[in-house]
Amino acid sequence: MDNVLNIKKPTFIVNSDIVYNNVQQLKKSLPANVLLRPHFKTHDNIEIGNLMKAMGIEKITVSSFEMAEKFANIGFSDITIAFPVNFNEFDSILKLAKSINLNIIISSIEAATLLSQRNIYCRLGYFVEVDTGYHRSGILWDDKNEIQKTLEVLSQISNLKFRGFLTHNGLTYSAKNREEVIKYTVSSNKIMKDLKKEFKYFNPIISVGDTPGCLSMKDFSEINEIRPGNFVYFDLMQLKLGICQLPDIAVRIICPVVDINRMRNEIVIYGGAVHFSKEYLIIDGQTVYGKATKIHGEKIYQISSYLTALSQEHGILRIDNQSINQIKPGDKIEIIPVHSCLTANLMKKNTLVF
Amino acid sequence: MDNVLNIKKPTFIVNSDIVYNNVQQLKKSLPANVLLRPHFKTHDNIEIGNLMKAMGIEKITVSSFEMAEKFANIGFSDITIAFPVNFNEFDSILKLAKSINLNIIISSIEAATLLSQRNIYCRLGYFVEVDTGYHRSGILWDDKNEIQKTLEVLSQISNLKFRGFLTHNGLTYSAKNREEVIKYTVSSNKIMKDLKKEFKYFNPIISVGDTPGCLSMKDFSEINEIRPGNFVYFDLMQLKLGICQLPDIAVRIICPVVDINRMRNEIVIYGGAVHFSKEYLIIDGQTVYGKATKIHGEKIYQISSYLTALSQEHGILRIDNQSINQIKPGDKIEIIPVHSCLTANLMKKNTLVF
Repeated sequence: MDNVLNIKKPTFIVNSDIVYNNVQQLKKSLPANVLLRPHFKTHDNIEIGNLMKAMGIEKITVSSFEMAEKFANIGFSDITIAFPVNFNEFDSILKLAKSINLNIIISSIEAATLLSQRNIYCRLGYFVEVDTGYHRSGILWDDKNEIQKTLEVLSQISNLKFRGFLTHNGLTYSAKNREEVIKYTVSSNKIMKDLKKEFKYFNPIISVGDTPGCLSMKDFSEINEIRPGNFVYFDLMQLKLGICQLPDIAVRIICPVVDINRMRNEIVIYGGAVHFSKEYLIIDGQTVYGKATKIHGEKIYQISSYLTALSQEHGILRIDNQSINQIKPGDKIEIIPVHSCLTANLMKKNTLVF
Repeated sequence: MDNVLNIKKPTFIVNSDIVYNNVQQLKKSLPANVLLRPHFKTHDNIEIGNLMKAMGIEKITVSSFEMAEKFANIGFSDITIAFPVNFNEFDSILKLAKSINLNIIISSIEAATLLSQRNIYCRLGYFVEVDTGYHRSGILWDDKNEIQKTLEVLSQISNLKFRGFLTHNGLTYSAKNREEVIKYTVSSNKIMKDLKKEFKYFNPIISVGDTPGCLSMKDFSEINEIRPGNFVYFDLMQLKLGICQLPDIAVRIICPVVDINRMRNEIVIYGGAVHFSKEYLIIDGQTVYGKATKIHGEKIYQISSYLTALSQEHGILRIDNQSINQIKPGDKIEIIPVHSCLTANLMKKNTLVF
């Protein structure tokens, strides 16, 4: 990245070589019969979408109709909107389903019943969302009666094609380390495999999500597809969970230094909650919004410092004694975000893929 | 707002009558010699900018060069960029200063020294930022030596015009109630008034910011201008601080209901961290990201429920027994955001002013 010196305001930079490696690495590690249907909500970026297309990714996951339309427009023709179907957008969903293979998510018997009142005039795929313990959305895994009733209602609807059971086991994000991620994942996968057996009459595939789980799984038996998203970029959260190493993180925010306080050994950057998001980690008892790795000033040098306070447009980093004497207002600092999904979304207008 | 029924996805709605009242109310409460120079970072919206212009607001505050340019383009000709000057954008700043009255902020002797190496080829105003105890940016109020040196360096630079001392006393946001807001504000204002006296040779004006402080001040003596921003919209944070009442809050997010869980008395909405931001409050020991007030379904009815969990695009609300039986997927729910500045920024593309 030679053009950091030309950057004038907070800018999200993406190293496409690292993205390429991250995708390649995961593809190589998967058994041949497991489909990688990456979630595009992390990057939501046309350039990265095209890169992944060139790498042979054909089937993708998105989290909104808007995103489905965006990536259909650049040639993706098999898309799952992995979010409980929004009936307010149902007309548009059907319109899109006329031209691509589109899958929606049914997360409750209520949604199934409402769907049965609609005229599904073209082929539309669906997954039934199962809650394996995260308790966000979906039918609770042990409510077999509700699952059965939902499948029965939906199987009566013409043009509607059942794909299988889908889950997002977000519990992995609350894990303390990789071992705990594996524990949560094994337990969630077992539930899904049992459902596959129990409802084999409906011939479901099993689709599981979440980057931590998908990247630490060893046993893929009975799993048909995975939908990780964050793995293309990674971030401090994944690093802390032990899911990636520092060189795997593909993204940085470049922020201008605007103020220096030598008494408190602090610098103020142009880079705040509207750039990073307020997602934080607790590291060594400290609230952390990002980790600074490099300064671009008269010279370029390494630094290691946490972004510990954020307001709307200000960020504050505590800097060691030696480095603070070299830093000047106008220098630029490279920072790894805590959660690349939220940061990428905020920085859409100021993103450089190189 | 009759068109809620036409809304299909998360949408930020702004009631311009309430905005009008909020601005009018504050204007009326100010002594004639105190200038209201509202901060436009909260709304950052052309329609609201034009509304305020029509109400006689001529001088404004922004937090970035980009925003200064945006509002200069719709006719604001006296703008303070209340953020430590970003030297990377200095050429553009000077260019804009040729056509409007532009003020920048100097927050350290370092910035002053760097400025003295620039060719200021047109008239440019500046404030010296003073840190009265918030410890974000600015020169610490009791470092009189540093303030004096900074003023001396800057007063040597031709075309540079000193306006005065500026502070943002963000401590008010950590107050428990209005009384504590007042305590913090009185103490910060006293520091500023003393500086005005001490540096009277330079003839400074005094500019203070922050909505909680500005809206609870009684004594404006020696204060020349105020720069509140949030008061145009207000939000749950200001409500909790006792700075506004519920009817003063001008904004809502309209979110479709996408899933219902009767066992947990929860609904899932299409509305997550990319819509609300992850800013939260603790209310009754509970983490709160928003407060639901109304449901638009077959009927429209009041509700009172907190948004207690957020992921990227999902939000979860706990609903009372009676209401949950009336709610259907596809209904729309009105929610007050915790922090309207961050929410307005995230929802820029989906904002309706009515």
